[in-house]
Amino acid sequence: MKRNFIKVWFVNWIVLLTACLISYTQTYAQKSDTQAIRSKVRDYRLQNEITILNELVDLLAIPNVVSDTENIQKNVNHLVAMLEKRGIQSQVLQAEGSPPVVFGELKAPGANKTIVVYMHYDGQPVNPENWASKPWQPSLRDKLEGKEIPLTDLKSPVDGEWRIFARSASDDKSPIVAMLAAIDALQAAKIPLSVNLKFFLEGEEEAGSRHLSAILNKYANLLKADVWLFCDGPVHQTRNMQVSFGARGVTGVRVTTYGPVRALHSGHYGNWAPNPIVLLTHLLASMRDTDGKILIEGFYEDVRPLTETERQAIAGSPNIDADLKHELGLAWSEGGGKRLEELIMQPALNVRNIQSGGAVARNAIQTEATSVIGFRLVPNQTLKRVRELVEAHIRDQGFYIVHDSPDIEIRRQHAKIVRLQWGDGYPSISTSIELPVSKALLQVVAETVGESFVKLPILGGSLPLSTFDEVLHTPVVIVPMVNHDNNQHAENENLRIQNLWDGIEVYASILARLGQVWK
Amino acid sequence: MKRNFIKVWFVNWIVLLTACLISYTQTYAQKSDTQAIRSKVRDYRLQNEITILNELVDLLAIPNVVSDTENIQKNVNHLVAMLEKRGIQSQVLQAEGSPPVVFGELKAPGANKTIVVYMHYDGQPVNPENWASKPWQPSLRDKLEGKEIPLTDLKSPVDGEWRIFARSASDDKSPIVAMLAAIDALQAAKIPLSVNLKFFLEGEEEAGSRHLSAILNKYANLLKADVWLFCDGPVHQTRNMQVSFGARGVTGVRVTTYGPVRALHSGHYGNWAPNPIVLLTHLLASMRDTDGKILIEGFYEDVRPLTETERQAIAGSPNIDADLKHELGLAWSEGGGKRLEELIMQPALNVRNIQSGGAVARNAIQTEATSVIGFRLVPNQTLKRVRELVEAHIRDQGFYIVHDSPDIEIRRQHAKIVRLQWGDGYPSISTSIELPVSKALLQVVAETVGESFVKLPILGGSLPLSTFDEVLHTPVVIVPMVNHDNNQHAENENLRIQNLWDGIEVYASILARLGQVWK
Repeated sequence: MKRNFIKVWFVNWIVLLTACLISYTQTYAQKSDTQAIRSKVRDYRLQNEITILNELVDLLAIPNVVSDTENIQKNVNHLVAMLEKRGIQSQVLQAEGSPPVVFGELKAPGANKTIVVYMHYDGQPVNPENWASKPWQPSLRDKLEGKEIPLTDLKSPVDGEWRIFARSASDDKSPIVAMLAAIDALQAAKIPLSVNLKFFLEGEEEAGSRHLSAILNKYANLLKADVWLFCDGPVHQTRNMQVSFGARGVTGVRVTTYGPVRALHSGHYGNWAPNPIVLLTHLLASMRDTDGKILIEGFYEDVRPLTETERQAIAGSPNIDADLKHELGLAWSEGGGKRLEELIMQPALNVRNIQSGGAVARNAIQTEATSVIGFRLVPNQTLKRVRELVEAHIRDQGFYIVHDSPDIEIRRQHAKIVRLQWGDGYPSISTSIELPVSKALLQVVAETVGESFVKLPILGGSLPLSTFDEVLHTPVVIVPMVNHDNNQHAENENLRIQNLWDGIEVYASILARLGQVWK
Repeated sequence: MKRNFIKVWFVNWIVLLTACLISYTQTYAQKSDTQAIRSKVRDYRLQNEITILNELVDLLAIPNVVSDTENIQKNVNHLVAMLEKRGIQSQVLQAEGSPPVVFGELKAPGANKTIVVYMHYDGQPVNPENWASKPWQPSLRDKLEGKEIPLTDLKSPVDGEWRIFARSASDDKSPIVAMLAAIDALQAAKIPLSVNLKFFLEGEEEAGSRHLSAILNKYANLLKADVWLFCDGPVHQTRNMQVSFGARGVTGVRVTTYGPVRALHSGHYGNWAPNPIVLLTHLLASMRDTDGKILIEGFYEDVRPLTETERQAIAGSPNIDADLKHELGLAWSEGGGKRLEELIMQPALNVRNIQSGGAVARNAIQTEATSVIGFRLVPNQTLKRVRELVEAHIRDQGFYIVHDSPDIEIRRQHAKIVRLQWGDGYPSISTSIELPVSKALLQVVAETVGESFVKLPILGGSLPLSTFDEVLHTPVVIVPMVNHDNNQHAENENLRIQNLWDGIEVYASILARLGQVWK
């Protein structure tokens, strides 16, 4: 009995040790595979830094506001040429009235999974007077607000802390260049792709992706895939890589209040004629407190509580509030002391601008005042319900709502009139962290950069992900690469060059390894 | 006894009737004197309409924002020439750093009273893009928003409803032209002036009359007079003439709130990073309700109650609220239904402009938001006390007040920072309606236009009257002439030509008659 027991015990141990050894060897082998790939990709980059940066600079030099159709077409031609140079079969996808999507396809022999990489080539409009250099004349500086370095002085190795300033330097042209450089590096090292690859380069993301649904429907077959990989948004504020599985939704409304039909002298009519700025400030103040809490009745009702896995992911990410506040010159943050990662899982109301009376403050009572409010939405909130709640709240404040410009007759009939112009938008979406593709992606990124990267259920920023879910029923994951302090959407948008180098390595790992570890 | 009684009774009646007859004859004679003068002045005007209008157009064509020193000097040269053409001895008054005041003097043989007529030749800054025609290229239209009539097509008699559009067409260049045309008309009719006349044409009224006090002090002897006659501001909204005996005071403050030191993506930081627009809207909303009531503690404490005479003057003026609301496209007015004339006797808080985020509403959290608030003050309120009350209120809202731009260290130390930049200003002042000069002026105006004109204790608009009281201890009265719907301080400022014709007649009456009836 005793000998049998010892024998079983011994055999068990042998089996266990062997299993451990095999497992360790496999993990090590995988990790070292990925590290070997990374090393070759880095070598390629070090030998081609100036070529890669020049490709980015050339792309950034093409203005890319969606309303500027002539330049949008130049972007398209340029992107098609960039794809075809790599032997990526390309075509332009378009629905009626839409800006073009640039599509590309690169098959991997033997691969049985297909990923679509998503980037957008359009950018936010600019107020050039606020920029230190021209938005579409890429310029190089040694840091944020640093001294300019002539682009002609570029020599390899380029300091990773230097930055390229231009509209869309970060959002979202540099991921396109990074992905193509990753392909170049793998081809140079003769490392095959592990997945079939499709490119989907959108042209109206910054204008609300109005035609996206029509394009996805029209080209549903062409766009068939096992996962969409979104290369948009910044990495974590600690400069650590970040993988996330969804994003907040977004919608917005332009709110206009009215005073007299012509501007009046504030002395002769002040405290008799209604002041549209006062009406607007009271209305905005009623919608949100200074601490970020939305005061619109019912606004939080549809919000889905976080799952336990999501909670753990947030708790496990580094807390950067103190550093961020120092960097941003803030003695406080909204949300009553809750940390950033927790707060961006909540819906938000952001007053994006406010305008009345021009920059020269004349002694006049203005005829109207305008503000654009942006909403960030979280899973389970719908656009329809949000609009209903907002309009009900505004009515409760005593306003009469119109959607067109009110003529003088309407203004004579209704005391407090507000015009609401709703923009397009889309809801939030999140992919389960438990899916095989989610796990495979987390493994490849861990093998590439170590375990210190950040995993988040949803990004604070918005991406038109819901449309992919609704139309194509394909899961989406997000692997951003640009620096967090990139002034995205604002003046002096920039890319920290080290983020480009890191992005190339991570994207190359994913292309080479994802198909191998995806069970 | 009875016969004596009858005799006394009879004599009394005779005396009384005789007195009445003399009084009636005098009044009639005075009135008919004034009417005879008016008739001659009108004849002169009818024969010289084009000359008068051309003189106005030439003056309006010279840009007149105080910061534009080159053009300010052109105005000065032009005005000096206009005065000297009439034999009015002129000189330029200047204190250190001040724009020039154009001074002129015309003595009336035998007159024992001296009046100074005040106008200003500078104008409010412009946003030319909002104007239908160029601000300093006077243009003629047949009504507000009417069709343009080439100035070269002008033929006498000119339709009084036509309007001249230009910066300062109303505020305040046309009274200068009207006063000089009145002098021309009297000279042509050989009617002597009844008062010694001085001109004081200021050049920085629209910039807060910063150097006025220094100039008045420096030239106190030269400016000695029995009354200052202010020719600024509009007539009553009924188009009736208006005489008033003071004006609201004015001060203003630029309020700036702060967010992060650089603009942030509203998705990645929305409801964590403080939003400066939200801070500003809450602050402004805390200072004043939508009905015009100022919510700053103690703000109404110093306000002097109206006297009985003042109350009667207001009650006796025509109620124009309903017509005004119709004209202005308003279904309501502030002040809980109180009439305009009553409300402008109260202090007012007017939000003059608000700015953040530019006209293009990007998806960003802004770095700062700014608003200029104007205060209109009434008798007994002091600038010092108003500033103290406003700053105390803002501190009570949890703000840390700075007066310069806060650097990043200050921003790291204080949660809610507000920058306050106080503009110059002056308190309100009112002259007693019981003074001999007040009574004489009311009599001359009544003789000229009948009893239907409006008498108001103070104007809603502001004039730097307190300085005259403080430095020169001379009473001030206000006799405006321009139309109420003149878009003063705003785009498309204009003068209704009939107001120019009426102004010439009233000013001529005052020059010819005031010294005669002033006891």
